[in-house]
Amino acid sequence: MAALQRLQPVSHVAVSGGTHGNEMSGIYLVKHWLREPSALQRDSFSATPFLANPLAIERCVRYVGRDLNRTFTKQFLNSKATQDEPYEVQRARKINQLYGPKGSAQAFDFLFELHNTTANVGACLIASVQDNLLPMHMCHFIQTHCTLGHYPILLYNLPDQEAYSISSVAKHGLAFELGPQPQGVLRADLLTQMGALVACALDFIDLFNKGTTFPAFETEAYRFIGSVDYPRHPDGELCASVHSKLQVGTA
Amino acid sequence: MAALQRLQPVSHVAVSGGTHGNEMSGIYLVKHWLREPSALQRDSFSATPFLANPLAIERCVRYVGRDLNRTFTKQFLNSKATQDEPYEVQRARKINQLYGPKGSAQAFDFLFELHNTTANVGACLIASVQDNLLPMHMCHFIQTHCTLGHYPILLYNLPDQEAYSISSVAKHGLAFELGPQPQGVLRADLLTQMGALVACALDFIDLFNKGTTFPAFETEAYRFIGSVDYPRHPDGELCASVHSKLQVGTA
Repeated sequence: MAALQRLQPVSHVAVSGGTHGNEMSGIYLVKHWLREPSALQRDSFSATPFLANPLAIERCVRYVGRDLNRTFTKQFLNSKATQDEPYEVQRARKINQLYGPKGSAQAFDFLFELHNTTANVGACLIASVQDNLLPMHMCHFIQTHCTLGHYPILLYNLPDQEAYSISSVAKHGLAFELGPQPQGVLRADLLTQMGALVACALDFIDLFNKGTTFPAFETEAYRFIGSVDYPRHPDGELCASVHSKLQVGTA
Repeated sequence: MAALQRLQPVSHVAVSGGTHGNEMSGIYLVKHWLREPSALQRDSFSATPFLANPLAIERCVRYVGRDLNRTFTKQFLNSKATQDEPYEVQRARKINQLYGPKGSAQAFDFLFELHNTTANVGACLIASVQDNLLPMHMCHFIQTHCTLGHYPILLYNLPDQEAYSISSVAKHGLAFELGPQPQGVLRADLLTQMGALVACALDFIDLFNKGTTFPAFETEAYRFIGSVDYPRHPDGELCASVHSKLQVGTA
């Protein structure tokens, strides 16, 4: 990864929680920051917290009509409102209006998205393959400065695939995916870790804004190469599970 | 607890999974036993596996219309079918017809129910306070013979409260509540442990049927004395979580 030098400051920053309404770490962090915004303030900027999918949060479900985090493509963002469209298409347009428009000069400089998974991924940093330099330096800064865990990097989309997640409405973005955590459940350890990750990322932006130069580096990043299904019976039913030695939290 | 001697054998035994459609250990065990019933056979009887709430299992939700496991009271079981009644009221009547009727001489002798929870309860044995001698001896047998864990006993209903869970349609019943496991997720360790618990309980019934006498004993059992809510902000939002030192599976 090439060196990073400040051209324009990163001043308009937002942090979204609850893009999926049953991923509780980000939901509770954002609710906390809405009460006490000082944790998101740095010398050179303040980040804006917001809840992305209020109706799904209220119902504690991933989404109501369709997956909000697959709805930030130009197809949906530029579509005309219709009466029977899914709630999430309306929300995507609204979020694009507030923090975008996607691809425009008026868009926010940086948008964080906070996720949980039931999978044992630890704390995964997820970026778009098309949005490289700034988020990758942020990931590297987190990997070297945040000591609570190991932070693998995932590039979630393919090189020729439009970024479709909420952070793609801003100029740059990064998602934090922490697991394992059951849907609808809040674990204090992951809440603490996610708060520390956001704090570390905001520190990075502040250093960047103050003119710090970040030298070139090499790191490892994962990308999608294919899916491996579970073994199944002829009728499609699963006939195996993940081995208990590959689980955490074994009783 | 007084000594237990065989009067009538326990010959009609059923094992229900998926009373709640997103509690996967029991669902996958029952699906497995439906393919390979030999694991439920003993010299003196064979247990019948069944899925209690097929529609909720298909949708991977706790229930579709109302909580099936609060629907086995006489009020619901003796109600007349109506067009707009919840799916689970129909299912409760059907299950009562197959394995009950509740309170009758024709009812099955024993019904197991298999549950999971996201709470860190380990492997909890849950009985009705009105159905005491046989299930309590079974619990004691499990506590002394099953070495995979610690098995606390919970008496779930109050002395003057009608038993409302699925096992109450049979003459005797016991529920296994294993956690923590996310809803919709299958953990190999809990699957193994639940299978071992059922096997141990069936061994107990077989010994009972063969005339084994079980002496009196003392043990500890929990009962409901009250609820403690989370600390909340004035608007009702939670302002605390369970401390990470009280969690298992801390990353």
